[in-house]
Amino acid sequence: MPTFTPLGTASAVPAHGRHLSAALLTHHGRHILFDCGEGTQYRLHAVEASAARIDVIAITHLHGDHCYGLPGLLSSMALQQRTDPLVCIGPPGLKAWLAATPGTAPADLPFACTVREMIPPPACTTVWRGRHAWLEAHALDHRVPVMGYRWTTYTRTGPLDVERARALGVSHPPDFGRLKEGTPVTTDDGTRVRPDDVVGPPQPGVSCAYITDTRPGPGSRALAQRAHLAYHDATFGSEHAARATETGHSTAAQAAQIARRSGTHRLLLGHLSARYEDWSQLEAEARRIHPNTEGAREGHAYPIEPAD
Amino acid sequence: MPTFTPLGTASAVPAHGRHLSAALLTHHGRHILFDCGEGTQYRLHAVEASAARIDVIAITHLHGDHCYGLPGLLSSMALQQRTDPLVCIGPPGLKAWLAATPGTAPADLPFACTVREMIPPPACTTVWRGRHAWLEAHALDHRVPVMGYRWTTYTRTGPLDVERARALGVSHPPDFGRLKEGTPVTTDDGTRVRPDDVVGPPQPGVSCAYITDTRPGPGSRALAQRAHLAYHDATFGSEHAARATETGHSTAAQAAQIARRSGTHRLLLGHLSARYEDWSQLEAEARRIHPNTEGAREGHAYPIEPAD
Repeated sequence: MPTFTPLGTASAVPAHGRHLSAALLTHHGRHILFDCGEGTQYRLHAVEASAARIDVIAITHLHGDHCYGLPGLLSSMALQQRTDPLVCIGPPGLKAWLAATPGTAPADLPFACTVREMIPPPACTTVWRGRHAWLEAHALDHRVPVMGYRWTTYTRTGPLDVERARALGVSHPPDFGRLKEGTPVTTDDGTRVRPDDVVGPPQPGVSCAYITDTRPGPGSRALAQRAHLAYHDATFGSEHAARATETGHSTAAQAAQIARRSGTHRLLLGHLSARYEDWSQLEAEARRIHPNTEGAREGHAYPIEPAD
Repeated sequence: MPTFTPLGTASAVPAHGRHLSAALLTHHGRHILFDCGEGTQYRLHAVEASAARIDVIAITHLHGDHCYGLPGLLSSMALQQRTDPLVCIGPPGLKAWLAATPGTAPADLPFACTVREMIPPPACTTVWRGRHAWLEAHALDHRVPVMGYRWTTYTRTGPLDVERARALGVSHPPDFGRLKEGTPVTTDDGTRVRPDDVVGPPQPGVSCAYITDTRPGPGSRALAQRAHLAYHDATFGSEHAARATETGHSTAAQAAQIARRSGTHRLLLGHLSARYEDWSQLEAEARRIHPNTEGAREGHAYPIEPAD
């Protein structure tokens, strides 16, 4: 079961025990890290996650509270003698910054670090493909170029009903594989067995969206579309809606509207302003619109699972 | 009473609850920060020190574990609407790095941030003068340009014995000030009173040295010279003396030799390798040479005080 673990949910500065932006997606023992605010390597220790198992670091934008932990994390990976390749994705400026930071020029690292710098795309665009899932990005609406991300597992073939196949006369082991792959087979007695006879319906993938920092808009809606779990900028309560618009953020109610209209299953509010001690007010505002909502709890591994 | 508070005593990577390099010197409610490893702004919160009260940030060298927290700290100062000027001192490369880091170009900060970049000097050189103390730097011996620092309070005039001055016939208020400043005065009855008659001996300043990362050498010795408190690189135990030399560090015993030969009063061992769980072995090795030694405790405010 894939999980999504918020590591930092603070906005701009650490406050009330909340840390700077980062979140860890875990699947089959490997990680994708979204954002890398200062101190992310400490946060990984705190949740007992190994930096060595991170395959992709997806940075939303180059405001410090979302990226200043990247040099330290790359350096620690180097000191830990990482050899696995790493992909870092982010908006323009990421390459030049890493090249200018002492110790983190990708060419000087002892592992292959590919920096995929891209202008935030105006439509969902695949930016990485893994063995079990792929990652898309979409431009968001902030004060600087930002992209949100959406991770989705591949649709899997339905389960093969082995007993039923045997009953229909399938006996050669390779024929079970053929059926599972969608190829009809003919048994020894000449019966033709079609995949639909013995293979269940395809199992659609699950998806998780990471959407911050942004005003509500087409990027939020596209990424949250039918997501099983979505983490969305909810910096302010409704009393600061004007300030949210001005600073390029969302209110909790706006995040909930996005989730509701996009058919998001479960919504996590994120990126809380330091003016709030905790999530209670914003949770109440959002739940009136989208009941399956909570303020993201740092260190909690949320399952990314199909709706019941 | 000035104090020195180690904030991070780890070498290279966070380990065993130890944090990356930083230390805070506090005097008359203002701070000097030595080094600024990743997470230093969190460490300042942890010891309830305000970043707004930092006047000087003195960076030893541009290895990430000593400087990657600087962009985040400067950004937070900016967000906290700092207006006080700030001086950042460090070796060549500091300016270019800050200029290339999104959000920390000194010209873009809302307060005056002066970056004093200098080639580590081969002799003790004053790099900052404050109201109560001054700061010197001296080159150290590592794999890249490094400078250590030494902070010293100004020598103060001795105390005026007011009763004795009165007994000698001094009565006009301005005359007390003149005596304190070293000028003789003549009383109404013609008696000449010399400062030595009524003013105690000058009170020498106290000093604190921050010496890391380095092999033992002339820089260490010069900075530790008669220091009341010295924090010194002690990355390794004696069994790894060859590795210390190779990597540009000191053993605890070497740090103790420096302290002993330089007349340092109290020695704090610092920058402990992740291979050690705690200071016990290194403390034992160092105390055989310089008894007044301990492994630096993070978050503990050590007084900088004259020897008894």
